[in-house]
This record gives sequence, structure tokens and C-alpha cells, in this order.
Amino acid sequence: TDQQEAIEQIDEVQNEIDKLNENASEEILKVEQKYNTLRQPYFKKRSDIIAKIPNFWVTAFVNHPQVSALLNEDDEEALQYLTKVEVQEFEDIKSGYRINFYFDTNPYFSNDILTKEFHLNDTGDPSSQSTPIKWKEGKDLTKKGSANKGKKRSHDDQESFFSWFCDHSDAGADELGEVIKDDIWPNPLQYYLASEVDEETGGDGGDDEEPEDEGNFEDEEEPDE
Amino acid sequence: TDQQEAIEQIDEVQNEIDKLNENASEEILKVEQKYNTLRQPYFKKRSDIIAKIPNFWVTAFVNHPQVSALLNEDDEEALQYLTKVEVQEFEDIKSGYRINFYFDTNPYFSNDILTKEFHLNDTGDPSSQSTPIKWKEGKDLTKKGSANKGKKRSHDDQESFFSWFCDHSDAGADELGEVIKDDIWPNPLQYYLASEVDEETGGDGGDDEEPEDEGNFEDEEEPDE
Repeated sequence: TDQQEAIEQIDEVQNEIDKLNENASEEILKVEQKYNTLRQPYFKKRSDIIAKIPNFWVTAFVNHPQVSALLNEDDEEALQYLTKVEVQEFEDIKSGYRINFYFDTNPYFSNDILTKEFHLNDTGDPSSQSTPIKWKEGKDLTKKGSANKGKKRSHDDQESFFSWFCDHSDAGADELGEVIKDDIWPNPLQYYLASEVDEETGGDGGDDEEPEDEGNFEDEEEPDE
Repeated sequence: TDQQEAIEQIDEVQNEIDKLNENASEEILKVEQKYNTLRQPYFKKRSDIIAKIPNFWVTAFVNHPQVSALLNEDDEEALQYLTKVEVQEFEDIKSGYRINFYFDTNPYFSNDILTKEFHLNDTGDPSSQSTPIKWKEGKDLTKKGSANKGKKRSHDDQESFFSWFCDHSDAGADELGEVIKDDIWPNPLQYYLASEVDEETGGDGGDDEEPEDEGNFEDEEEPDE
């Protein structure tokens, strides 16, 4: 019938439109890949400078509202050894990303790098995997009460940040992974500085930035919440 | 201080990264614009063929779950006169879009085209505006009970689809507008055909697939822009 023919013609046109859409997606992906590559030397440079600032990452984390909610006191102490964070999107971007956390020698675990990575397989199913953490004797922060035994913990019911490395239950929409990738990584400085603002307006002293008061995290008892 | 200096250096690097991000966004926008232009002749061709199929759009709407929920019986009758739908994204895409609905001469209103358009102004605030509908005497479907008086209405509490043209309360996330733009417009045929499947599998009774019996489209004239 005429109508059947018309439907077939629409279908043909639709195929042409679909082809254009695929081409558009490919071109956009290429642009994203190009800029991903162009950004790398700046990320590298940024990491090198950040490494000079003690407690940069733990400060940025503590002052990010969503991440802060995941940190207990022991986590904050352990994260003082975090010297570098690195987000790597996989070459085709859509298939996933990896976050590397570089640690100085520390009393908690013997790994230099903790990594968690997120994949989408060919059928679009998400999965994640990460480095097993080699906890030092009695220091496993993911086991409640096992670390800092002598210390009174105010967040005893607060699961550890480090539990995230063992949690692969929501690989398709990992909240912490996405916050780090999409919110912190694009501009960690703003969270680092937010901390200073909080601290200063908290006591409301002079507003000259004087973050050179180091060692301050040992005394800092209340994570801003 | 060293640390202050480091922060300034991070800030400089961050500015470079931000510049790259802006360039990336611009390039991606250009790709999208290019493909928007390339798609136009296919959309035009598709519209011309669709116009040959009686009740194409009302069928597609009725068979789209979200749109269907917005239609009462009178709406469905009025939408039988809808011959063409057109989605236009504004040149810079981000600033908004317009949907044009072309109608044959019909007993409900005297407009040939009903339009609703969505804008984002420079500060990112959304707004929408639309064609005032020139309802014929006693035919205003947005006024309950005013139309089809002789007919028993089973959806007396169902607001009219056409009320959408007067509703500018949620211009930033207009559900119907976005469903038409992002879901139906990319492939209306699938919804039109979904209808046939429903009907053939013995669905909702009433209209069998012989829309050429409707006779509504006899004096159809091509309302080309």
C-alpha cells in the first residue's frame, strides 16, 4: 500500500539520520580525545606543584561536602600521606576511567599507589576493580576499631573512606568516583582554598591566606561538615 | 611564601586548563552545529513523507507513554489535524529550541501553526513562550467541559494537552518539550509503529489500522514553511 511504502521511505530516511548521528558522535569523541591529550601536560604540571603543598589533597577532600561525609578521623590521618591524585579516562572515554592515589610511606598500608578503575564492557555493563590494600598489622581502617586503638573515636559508626576500594556494588554510578573525576579533578584548588576560607571565616581573623601553618591537621579535630 | 607561590602557580595552570576546556566546548558545539545543518534535509524529507500518512503524529503521540498520559479524548481528536511537527534548535544550540506544530483546518482553533519555544538568556535563566491559541466558539479544550458537550467525557479530570501551550512554569525542564525534542523527534517512526503493534496484538479496541477512513485529512494542504 501507499502507506506501507511511505513507512519504508521514512525508515530509509531515518537510517540516513542515524548514520549522521553516529558520525557526529565519533567526531565529538575525537574532539574530546584531542583535548584530553592537550590537557595532560597541564595536569602533570599541576600535580608537580600540588606535591609541594603539604596536605593539599586531604584538605581538598575534607572541604568537599560529599567526600567529607565519607571520612572518619582515621581516614583523615591516613590521607595526610596522599601526595598525588590522578584521573585517567580511557582512550575511548566512554569505556571508563581510573583514579590513582599515590601515598607516601605511611603507618597504615604498604602500597605506594591505590587504584580504582571503572569499566563499561562492550554490552555497556559497568564493573569496577581496585588494588587490594596491604594493611599493616592492626591498621586496617575498614575493620572497625582495629586502628588507633588508644584513641577515642568520635565516628565509630562511620564507615571508612578506604572501604570504597572494596565496594564494587555500584560500578555504574560510583558516587565517590564520579565526584573525584567530574568535580574535584577539574579544579581541586577551589576545594583546597575553600578549606582556608572556612578556617578563616570560622575564627574570622585576617583574610590573608596563611596556609603555612603546617602540621595543622593533627590538631584539627572537627572536619567541617 | 613558597606555599603561596605554589597556589598561584596552580591557579595559572588551572587557567590554562580552563581555556582548553572552553576551546573544547566550542569545537564540540561546532561539530553539533555542522551535523544539525546536515540533518535538516533529511528531516525535511521525512516530514514530507510523514505528511502522506494520515494520523501519523497523533498515533505517535498516543503511543508514547509520557505524551499519551497528557492526552484526553478531545485532545486526540484535535491532534488528528496535526500534519507536521518540527523541532528547531537555535543556532547556538545551548540557547534553546522551538517546536512548531502544523495543523490542518480544524473545528477547534483557527491557527495554522502552534509554536512553543524555550530560551536560555545570557545569565542562563530559562523562559518559554508560545502562540496564543485562537479557539473557535465553545471549543477551548483547556476549559473543562467546554468542548464536545454532547459527548460523554471519560477524562473529565484530565487536563488538556493544549494547556501546555499556556504553561511556562517550568521552562528550564519542560517535560513534554524535552520528550518531543529528545525522544520523539529523533525517531518518530518507532512510536508510530509501536501503535500498530499494540493494535495488532489486539490492544485497545476501537481504531483498527485504517486511518484512511477517517476522512479528516481530505483537504490537507502542504503547510510548508
